[in-house]
Amino acid sequence: MNEFMKLAIDEALDGMKSNDGGPFGAVIVRNGEIISYAHNEVVKTNDPTAHAEVTALRKASSKLSRFDLSDCEIYSSCEPCPMCFAAIHWAKIKKLYYGATKEDAANINFDDRYIYDVIKGTAKKLQVEVIQLDREESLEPFRKWKMKIDKTEY
Amino acid sequence: MNEFMKLAIDEALDGMKSNDGGPFGAVIVRNGEIISYAHNEVVKTNDPTAHAEVTALRKASSKLSRFDLSDCEIYSSCEPCPMCFAAIHWAKIKKLYYGATKEDAANINFDDRYIYDVIKGTAKKLQVEVIQLDREESLEPFRKWKMKIDKTEY
Repeated sequence: MNEFMKLAIDEALDGMKSNDGGPFGAVIVRNGEIISYAHNEVVKTNDPTAHAEVTALRKASSKLSRFDLSDCEIYSSCEPCPMCFAAIHWAKIKKLYYGATKEDAANINFDDRYIYDVIKGTAKKLQVEVIQLDREESLEPFRKWKMKIDKTEY
Repeated sequence: MNEFMKLAIDEALDGMKSNDGGPFGAVIVRNGEIISYAHNEVVKTNDPTAHAEVTALRKASSKLSRFDLSDCEIYSSCEPCPMCFAAIHWAKIKKLYYGATKEDAANINFDDRYIYDVIKGTAKKLQVEVIQLDREESLEPFRKWKMKIDKTEY
């Protein structure tokens, strides 16, 4: 099997044994070299965003001192949830390898597939009530951003 | 206007002035009391996941020492991107208020809408190539999770 996927799976097993969080691991690789690896730490850190992929991305960005990881690839032991999948996009990564599917995750009671269904508009019930307000006032930062000369775009 | 939305907008303006990142702010509230507030810090921290909402969620979880924020509400100066929207689901939040839309964000060159299109399957081109491999081996952590007695579910 793929050696980086094996490391992602080993991370998943390690994190589970330590009761750090769910059974998920991820590895970030650049030119065949491991930049970072991580497992889910939601329970250990009390951080609902501390999934394996997000944690591996944070570690890699910190190590390389840049938010643009477009020269890296990510290996995940499971198909990323929408949070992690979008984070991979924000990090500008171009290649994602995954092992188990979101259906496999749903079978052990993780909500990844449900959140995909919410975003796709196919979920039967919604956990989050979404209310828009004060749009006009909320556009003020955007108007200022447009005029800003010394901005860093990403 | 709503006082919590005003704080989210003020955060967006502050973060932009400090060149910490994009023009976005978020506030987390419980029973009318502010638990945390944050602005986008992607540039300052070199962390592609440091959006306003994710950062506010992390701060609130840390402050309350729990990953379950189901008794909290979130105010965001802009409609959350899929990463933040999914993070709000993982944090079990039940109410989201937002100001500007993802179309407004796209108008100032932020990719939120594009990532929604990728997830919905309507994007014309894909930034991330997605490859599945080693599913059978990747199911091992899930099998162990199913059998695990002392697990914390979330």
